[in-house]
Amino acid sequence: MRILNSQNPTFDQELTDLLAFETVNDPQLLATVDKIIADVRQGGDEVILQLTQKFDNHPAETFAELQISQVELKQAFDNLDNTVKSALELSAKRIQNFHQKQVQDSWMFTDELGNTLGQKVTPLDKVGIYVPGGLASYPSSVLMNAIPAKVAGVGEIVMVVPAPNGELNPLVLAATYLAGVDKVFTIGGAQAVAGLAYGTASIPQVDKITGPGNKYVAAAKRAVFGQVGIDMIAGPSEVLVYAEGVAEDRADWLAMDLLSQAEHDMVAQAIFVTTSEQLLKDVENEINNALAILPKAEIAKTSIANRGALILVKDRAEGVQVINRIAPEHLELSVNDPENMAQDIRHAGAIFMGRFTPEAIGDYCVGPNHVLPTSGTARFSSPLGVYDFQKKSSIIYCTEQGSQSLAKTADILAMEENLEAHARSARYRINQ
Amino acid sequence: MRILNSQNPTFDQELTDLLAFETVNDPQLLATVDKIIADVRQGGDEVILQLTQKFDNHPAETFAELQISQVELKQAFDNLDNTVKSALELSAKRIQNFHQKQVQDSWMFTDELGNTLGQKVTPLDKVGIYVPGGLASYPSSVLMNAIPAKVAGVGEIVMVVPAPNGELNPLVLAATYLAGVDKVFTIGGAQAVAGLAYGTASIPQVDKITGPGNKYVAAAKRAVFGQVGIDMIAGPSEVLVYAEGVAEDRADWLAMDLLSQAEHDMVAQAIFVTTSEQLLKDVENEINNALAILPKAEIAKTSIANRGALILVKDRAEGVQVINRIAPEHLELSVNDPENMAQDIRHAGAIFMGRFTPEAIGDYCVGPNHVLPTSGTARFSSPLGVYDFQKKSSIIYCTEQGSQSLAKTADILAMEENLEAHARSARYRINQ
Repeated sequence: MRILNSQNPTFDQELTDLLAFETVNDPQLLATVDKIIADVRQGGDEVILQLTQKFDNHPAETFAELQISQVELKQAFDNLDNTVKSALELSAKRIQNFHQKQVQDSWMFTDELGNTLGQKVTPLDKVGIYVPGGLASYPSSVLMNAIPAKVAGVGEIVMVVPAPNGELNPLVLAATYLAGVDKVFTIGGAQAVAGLAYGTASIPQVDKITGPGNKYVAAAKRAVFGQVGIDMIAGPSEVLVYAEGVAEDRADWLAMDLLSQAEHDMVAQAIFVTTSEQLLKDVENEINNALAILPKAEIAKTSIANRGALILVKDRAEGVQVINRIAPEHLELSVNDPENMAQDIRHAGAIFMGRFTPEAIGDYCVGPNHVLPTSGTARFSSPLGVYDFQKKSSIIYCTEQGSQSLAKTADILAMEENLEAHARSARYRINQ
Repeated sequence: MRILNSQNPTFDQELTDLLAFETVNDPQLLATVDKIIADVRQGGDEVILQLTQKFDNHPAETFAELQISQVELKQAFDNLDNTVKSALELSAKRIQNFHQKQVQDSWMFTDELGNTLGQKVTPLDKVGIYVPGGLASYPSSVLMNAIPAKVAGVGEIVMVVPAPNGELNPLVLAATYLAGVDKVFTIGGAQAVAGLAYGTASIPQVDKITGPGNKYVAAAKRAVFGQVGIDMIAGPSEVLVYAEGVAEDRADWLAMDLLSQAEHDMVAQAIFVTTSEQLLKDVENEINNALAILPKAEIAKTSIANRGALILVKDRAEGVQVINRIAPEHLELSVNDPENMAQDIRHAGAIFMGRFTPEAIGDYCVGPNHVLPTSGTARFSSPLGVYDFQKKSSIIYCTEQGSQSLAKTADILAMEENLEAHARSARYRINQ
């Protein structure tokens, strides 16, 4: 496994190389995606059906077979084993409780001139949520996307989830039922994104598309941005685990936390940062031990070999620097005083604090969203939340007197900007 | 001027045609922009200098001449005429007061298991703000972009503003000083966006780029999205004015309000919606009268002829439908009871209520931001605000007991998702 040492003069470049990942700018991929979008805009349902047969090897013969009815969703939920049903319900409840606290309300105030100013907050009318399928079809992703939209009061939620060979995890359907999704189509890739962005005879045109997907999905989301809103452009998932090698540290726990990221995807990234050379070695050994027994060892091995790293830093301050530089999607602070350390963390999607908060439980059921900014985008973006499904309109309501005072100022500045219609429009309110 | 009637069977298609605007998907433009970005990533300052000489006809011979010092900014401010200085200061103060109310705070709570959950809110480290130059170099745009970033607590604000022929409105520099911008470069277009997104020897690499620009800027912002955050992809500016032809209506005011949008840009869009055939005619006449005297009549005429429209609707309910369908950037409700009507408005960048709230005063000095979602994107996005310069990290801190209960749920769901490392990572916290 790759080992980096912050004292090495080439450390900065090594770190840059470790983090480099830019598939979405591959010109060939962009051209493929642009073509798919253009085809879907032209051919609608029929094109999506063809592409789904081709890319997903889906046996459907008509587009109608790609839609899943509410009856099927309810059946999937009713057929769940009780233990699983309870676990899913508990997760949903906790996710809902947490996201309820994100609801933004309209606000207004009266200024000293008597004018009323504020912002009106409204939910989006229709949203599309993308849930990955195939290798990584996660019921938890359904809950994490749909529940915040529901809490925001979105009018219609349309979900797309690819079903390679026509197969789908029944738990995904059960979660869809539980979350109250309005329409579900078993389609994926750029064609699903295009269908949602432009609408087809069967797929409603939505206002925003959220949820992570592979590089085709990421490129398609960027391409339709502007036509619709998007939450973010997701890269591979990553975790950064930090520990200092004190008595309480358990190398086997730390190793498994890293592997829980690595098992997701061959391009997932697991990084361990520590001040302790001994712990670094112990964690490396435990990773190797665990790889011998995990069912997804092949995926995890590739991820660890190509994108994983163990980073030795001088002290905590340097650890914090490395963390803020990386701006990790998931950050585990496996230290005795995570509340102190978290104060210095400026960029992270989610901060998992202490030894009893592994990323794995946050992925499912703690409550905060697991759709998080990847690839360093935590520098400027936030976890998926209710705020992604609400938007604001400014409210400006001037009284006659309030307007006259402001119109004088507007008149002066408009003339400086050489915009005479602006100036006259303002002036009319002064000299009636 | 184009007249549409909602009772016409082809109205829906006519409205679609009226609103159609999609330059950002022009393949040739995208290719040009991609090339510029690639060149800037390769050649940095030198390439930006060359492109600025070429596209802006800027006389600078070195890149250093494209940066404006704080001394020059202060001089521009000090040299302002007192009336203008006061107007600018009043605007800045009001913008600051309004945006102060948008500041989001970190929040946390303890759940019933004793776990601490919440979101930590932090300002962005570095942002780039794009201020249009040339034809439309607006000091107000400096204030509207920079002040929310300042209020959010952004560490460094880097501004770019093109200066065709090396010329710049001194008021833009004065506003830059007043707003407290850290660095200013007189560059624009896709090259400026690329410089901010990837950094050069002279331009700091920023985390997010905000502010409107022409179609090259819009396309470049979309292309660098993911590498940096962006606020939105701006299209031409638009206004929708609504009135019902009651005694208080003044056709000359309404016409001037429409023209204050049309004078911005030949592709700007001014739409008047009314229930009154008489007022529609009166407004059309007043537009023609005003066009005879406005200094920017040529621009306004083109805008009105190509993109303007007068729309006759049956009643207010239908007017509301048309408004929500258009989701206008600026909406003026020139009615006696705008507070009633505003309740039914779901999509608008800003709602200007009553006859004494023309868009023109909102553009400058009321307080709310004038950087607003255009081209129907108010369906899913919001005015530029402090929230664009803050981001959130989830906080999850489980107690030992709290973790054990949740780990059981995570274990069950992880096994259903076939993610054994997740399940083991959770299980470790149960069976220590």
